[in-house]
Amino acid sequence: MANPSMLSLIKTKRDGGEHSREELAWLVSNVKEIPDYQLSAWLMAVVLRGMTITETTHLTDLMAHSGQVMDLSDVPGLCADKHSTGGVGDKVTLVLAPLVASAGVTVAKLSGRGLGHTGGTVDKVEAIPGFTPEIPIEQFKQQLREIQIALASQTGELAPADGVLYAMRDVTATVESIPLIAASVLSKKIASGADVILLDVKTGSGAFMKDDASAKALADTMMEVGRRLSKQVVCVVSEMGQPLGQAVGHSNEVAEAILTLQGKGPADLTELCVKLGGLILLGAGATSTAEAGEAKLREAIASGAAIEKFREFVKAQGGDPRVIESPEIMPQPRLRVPVEATQEGIVQQLDALPIGIACKELGGGRLFKGAPLDLAVGVELMKKVGDRVEKGETLAYLLVNDEAKLAAATESVQSAYHLGPTPASAPDLIRAVYAAEPVSGRS
Amino acid sequence: MANPSMLSLIKTKRDGGEHSREELAWLVSNVKEIPDYQLSAWLMAVVLRGMTITETTHLTDLMAHSGQVMDLSDVPGLCADKHSTGGVGDKVTLVLAPLVASAGVTVAKLSGRGLGHTGGTVDKVEAIPGFTPEIPIEQFKQQLREIQIALASQTGELAPADGVLYAMRDVTATVESIPLIAASVLSKKIASGADVILLDVKTGSGAFMKDDASAKALADTMMEVGRRLSKQVVCVVSEMGQPLGQAVGHSNEVAEAILTLQGKGPADLTELCVKLGGLILLGAGATSTAEAGEAKLREAIASGAAIEKFREFVKAQGGDPRVIESPEIMPQPRLRVPVEATQEGIVQQLDALPIGIACKELGGGRLFKGAPLDLAVGVELMKKVGDRVEKGETLAYLLVNDEAKLAAATESVQSAYHLGPTPASAPDLIRAVYAAEPVSGRS
Repeated sequence: MANPSMLSLIKTKRDGGEHSREELAWLVSNVKEIPDYQLSAWLMAVVLRGMTITETTHLTDLMAHSGQVMDLSDVPGLCADKHSTGGVGDKVTLVLAPLVASAGVTVAKLSGRGLGHTGGTVDKVEAIPGFTPEIPIEQFKQQLREIQIALASQTGELAPADGVLYAMRDVTATVESIPLIAASVLSKKIASGADVILLDVKTGSGAFMKDDASAKALADTMMEVGRRLSKQVVCVVSEMGQPLGQAVGHSNEVAEAILTLQGKGPADLTELCVKLGGLILLGAGATSTAEAGEAKLREAIASGAAIEKFREFVKAQGGDPRVIESPEIMPQPRLRVPVEATQEGIVQQLDALPIGIACKELGGGRLFKGAPLDLAVGVELMKKVGDRVEKGETLAYLLVNDEAKLAAATESVQSAYHLGPTPASAPDLIRAVYAAEPVSGRS
Repeated sequence: MANPSMLSLIKTKRDGGEHSREELAWLVSNVKEIPDYQLSAWLMAVVLRGMTITETTHLTDLMAHSGQVMDLSDVPGLCADKHSTGGVGDKVTLVLAPLVASAGVTVAKLSGRGLGHTGGTVDKVEAIPGFTPEIPIEQFKQQLREIQIALASQTGELAPADGVLYAMRDVTATVESIPLIAASVLSKKIASGADVILLDVKTGSGAFMKDDASAKALADTMMEVGRRLSKQVVCVVSEMGQPLGQAVGHSNEVAEAILTLQGKGPADLTELCVKLGGLILLGAGATSTAEAGEAKLREAIASGAAIEKFREFVKAQGGDPRVIESPEIMPQPRLRVPVEATQEGIVQQLDALPIGIACKELGGGRLFKGAPLDLAVGVELMKKVGDRVEKGETLAYLLVNDEAKLAAATESVQSAYHLGPTPASAPDLIRAVYAAEPVSGRS
C-alpha cells in the first residue's frame, strides 16, 4: 500500500523543496517498507531536482547508521580507507595499503568482490596461497593495532539502507545524481569506521562523471559532507584511460603489486600509488604537505619497509609470504599466447573496457554474484599508449587455461588497440586533486 | 523483474529526450507488465521533463485505443461530449445535454459516479423514479439516432492503460503534469467515441491548475492534441468559486436543472450552460459563431424545446416524465433545517468545498466506491457572493434525514460563508475560452 508520508516527501522533492533531517530519518528507517514505486518516484525527483549539501549530509549520516557501524575507537590514531569507482587492472589498493601502513598510517580496508569486467581486491588476494580476507572483526582490529593494516571482505551489513536504495537506483535509471552518489559512497566508508577517506572519481566517457565540471562538483560535495561529518575526505579526479600497469587478472596483478612495492613496478602504477599515498599521509596529519608524504613513501619503497609491511600483512591473514620471492606459487595459466599487431603504428589509445572483457571471457570475471573465478588467467599488456609497434609484433599476451575462449579474447584485445602514425603520450592519470585542510585529530 | 526496454525509456526521458511513437506504443501495450517502480520513475521524469505535443498526441491516441473504443460511426452527424474536472453543485451536464440536443447536436454522454464531495451525473439522474443509466450499447446508439441524446454509466473498459497509469500517478505525486492530464482526459473521451469535446478546466486554489497561465497551457495542449487526432476540442477555463446555482445534492439538483431548462433557473447556471452550449454548437459546425449558438439555445429554452428534449430523454431511459411537473416524486428529506448567520455583513466568499463536505456528511456523498447514497439530502444555498445578510437570517437550508449529522453539517456550511463590510460580486464564471476553427466533418 502506498504510504501517505512518503507521498508528501515525493511532493516536496518534486516541487524542488528541501527535506528536513526528520523527513530523511523517517525515509531511511522505513526504506524497506516504503512501496518500491514510491521510492523510485522520489529517487527520480532527487535526480532531477537535486539535494542541498545539508540534505546530502543528513542522508549520508543516516544511511551510514542504518545498520552495523564498525567501531575502531580502540585502534590508536586515524584509520584511512580508499574508494575508487573501479577500473581495469586497478591493483592500486594492493600497493597503496601496505605502502601507507609502512609509513605509519593505519589502513583499515573493507573491500568487495569483483563483478563483470572489473576485478575486486578481495578476489585478487585470494590468489596468494592461504590468504583469507574473511577474518572476524576482532582479528581485524588486532591487526590494525599491531601491524596497522588489515583487509576484510565487506559484509552485507554495512549501510543496509544504501543497499536498498542502490538496488532500486540501478533498475530505475536513477544512479546519475551527485548527492545520491556522494551519500552512497560516503555512507559505506563511514559505516566501515574510516576517518580519512581517499576517493578516486573517474572521469571521461564510460565513467559516471562525463566531464571535469561534474567530477569537480562530486568531489566538492563529498569533501563538504565529509567536513560536516568530521571525516577527512580527499578526492582525486582521474582519467578513465588505458589499464594501469601491464597486468590484468588476479595472480598477475598481485605479482605486479609485489614488484611495485619492491621499487621494480611499472612507472604509471608506482607514480599513482605514491601520489595517492602522499594525499592520505597529508589527510591523516602524518606529514604537512602531500609532497613530504610522497617523499616518505618513496623512501619506504627504497628502504624495503613497504615490501616488509606487505609480508607482515600476508602472514597475518594466513597467506604464504614466500609469494614475494616466488610469485609462481600463485595459480598459473597453462598457456601464454601472444596477440599480434595486424598493422604497424604508434598506440594512440588503449581502451580499458575490451581488455577487461577479454579477461572476463578467459574466466577471470564474474557474470553473476558468487560465480567461480579462474585466478590464473588474464592479460599482460606489452604495448601501451605512445609505444611504437611493428606489424606482427606482440601487443599483449593472453594467460589462458581454456583454449576455446582464445579467439574471442584475442579479438577483444585487438579491438582495444588503436594505432596511428602520429606520436602519442598517455594523459596524466590524475586530472585534479581536491583536499581540504588536514584533520587535527579523531572526532 | 526490471525491464531493460523500460530502463532505456526512463533514461531517455530523464535526460530530456523525446520518445518515438514506437517507444510509447511499447509502453502502453506493456503497461500492466512493467514493474511499478519503473513506471513511477518514468512518470516522475515526465512530470519534471515534460513531453512534446507530438509525444502527448501519441500517448493520447495509444491509450484511447488500449481497450474497447465506442464505435458511433452508424450515428449520423458529429457526437458531442463534455468533461469537467468536477465541482460542487455542478449540474451542468443535466442542463447542457438536453439543451444542446434540442438544438440539433447529438450528445453521447458517458458519465461516472461521484466520489468524495463531488457528485456524479449518473447518481443524480437516479433520483428520477425509473431512470436507468445502465443501458446496453445498442440502446445507447439507438437513442442517439432517434432523439440525439443518451447517457450511460461509464464502464471500466475504456482506455484501460490510462487506468493503470492514473492509479500509479495518484500514489506517487505524479498527477500534476500537463501532458499526462491532457492524455488522460482526452484518451477517455476519444475512447467514448466523441467528435466534439468540451473541456472545462478549473483554475484557482484547490484546482489542478493553480493559475491562468497553466490553465491556458493545458487548454492549448488539449486543443492541439485534439486537432492532430481530428477531434474538435473546445476548452473553457472556469473559476473554482462558489457552488453553481442554489442546490447541492441529488434530487434537488435535478429539480434545479429542470427549472433551468424551463427558463426559471438561477442566472449563473443558465448563463454558463448557454455559453458552454454555444461553444459546442460552434464546434459541431451547427452555427458559425458561438453567439449564434447561444441565441439558438435561448430560443430552445423559451420555446419549450429544451424541456421537451429532457422529457424524451427521461422517457427513453425508463424514467417517469412526471418529474418535470412534480419534482417531489423524487426522494425528499424528512427535514429542512435553516443555517443562520451568526453576524451581519455582505457575503465576500462562499467556499464550495465545505458545502460539498456538508452534503457528504448528511449522506449525500461516498467515502468509498460502491457505497450507498442518500439522494434526498443536500444543501440549499439562500445567500451567495454579494448578498447582504442580517444576523440570524437564513444562509442556507440543510436537507436532512439523519438528525445526528446536523451539527457537523451546520458547522461546515457556516465555515463556508465569509462575511465582510464591503460590497462584493462573484467573479465571472468563465475566465477564458479556447476554441479552434470548427471541424468541417467527421474524420
